Amino acid sequence: MSNQIQFYGDSISGNCYKLQLVCPELGLDYVWHEMDILARDTQTPNFLALNPNGKVPLMILEDGRVLPESNAILSYLADGTALAGSDRYAKANVLRWLFFEQYSHEPFIATSRFITKYLNSPPERQADLDAKQPGGHKALAVMEQQLSTLEFIANNEYSIADIALYAYTHVAHEGGFNLDGYPSVRKWLKRVEDRPQYVPMRS
Amino acid sequence: MSNQIQFYGDSISGNCYKLQLVCPELGLDYVWHEMDILARDTQTPNFLALNPNGKVPLMILEDGRVLPESNAILSYLADGTALAGSDRYAKANVLRWLFFEQYSHEPFIATSRFITKYLNSPPERQADLDAKQPGGHKALAVMEQQLSTLEFIANNEYSIADIALYAYTHVAHEGGFNLDGYPSVRKWLKRVEDRPQYVPMRS
Repeated sequence: MSNQIQFYGDSISGNCYKLQLVCPELGLDYVWHEMDILARDTQTPNFLALNPNGKVPLMILEDGRVLPESNAILSYLADGTALAGSDRYAKANVLRWLFFEQYSHEPFIATSRFITKYLNSPPERQADLDAKQPGGHKALAVMEQQLSTLEFIANNEYSIADIALYAYTHVAHEGGFNLDGYPSVRKWLKRVEDRPQYVPMRS
Repeated sequence: MSNQIQFYGDSISGNCYKLQLVCPELGLDYVWHEMDILARDTQTPNFLALNPNGKVPLMILEDGRVLPESNAILSYLADGTALAGSDRYAKANVLRWLFFEQYSHEPFIATSRFITKYLNSPPERQADLDAKQPGGHKALAVMEQQLSTLEFIANNEYSIADIALYAYTHVAHEGGFNLDGYPSVRKWLKRVEDRPQYVPMRS
């Protein structure tokens, strides 16, 4: 039991950084338990008892209930606020981009950064890295098209969809994705960074 | 404009089948526009204008608004009903399993079935298929653990999380995943199939 929300997260992870971005927007304090993915902190019996899928971030509510999955945590925290969308369609449209992020963006852009920055690009992963380039650029092109006419990705309102997509897009270059060809995406990154509650990634 | 919801979907796709499962539960009628993924119906200029990400399913609302992403569509349709979860935590917990499905299940189990059943296992994809085995079995093991003590995957209540996970789990064998080692998953499949509104997959 705690009087604050607790997060288990690794500060090198964009999925965990999402929570550090959303909490100041909502005026929420939290306790952060730093985990080391590379040291396999997420694979211990104690942690697997909390999340059998062995992934961070993980949220522990004040009453002890547990919730994994970064975008489910974002949805929980933002529930009932404009950050989750202001009506039925807007809420579903925010979710649309959260699912896009996890299926069409993160597996290419985040995993490339992990291999490059944290595994130091081992030669046996080069083919894997190369294979992730088209998917990552496709995701960036979809974002570029959306952001060429809109200031924010879903419903043209700042939301947890922007937070989720910002987390790994702003460090895409660390995984070998050059953003020069995506001017609207770069303007949108700046727009997110200009928010008063913005906090930079720690890693 | 239409007085019914319209779906663009390919009946060979579990992601599209999810919508055929949820609508009878909600008493919703719909118009179905059959698309052929293999014939690249999702890559035409007309379709890309509706969904720049070039994927089905896609929903067109009665007023013409568009929504892609199977699990966002499920969330929209079930919004405000018990199928989406009955309180703030339950709703987020349903989303947790929807994100699990898209990130930790579908990329292994659904894509293996696509390569095996629809591309006829070309030799150059064998290494890819083999590489998907551990991830798929990990997802099934996580489900087995959850379902060993619960009747339904999220909050122990039938929800769109069961629908989303059922869609590809019940045809996992078609992609080379033997479910013999997952008795709780097999009982849960039967539980979903025993629902009065259940409809089998068309393909």
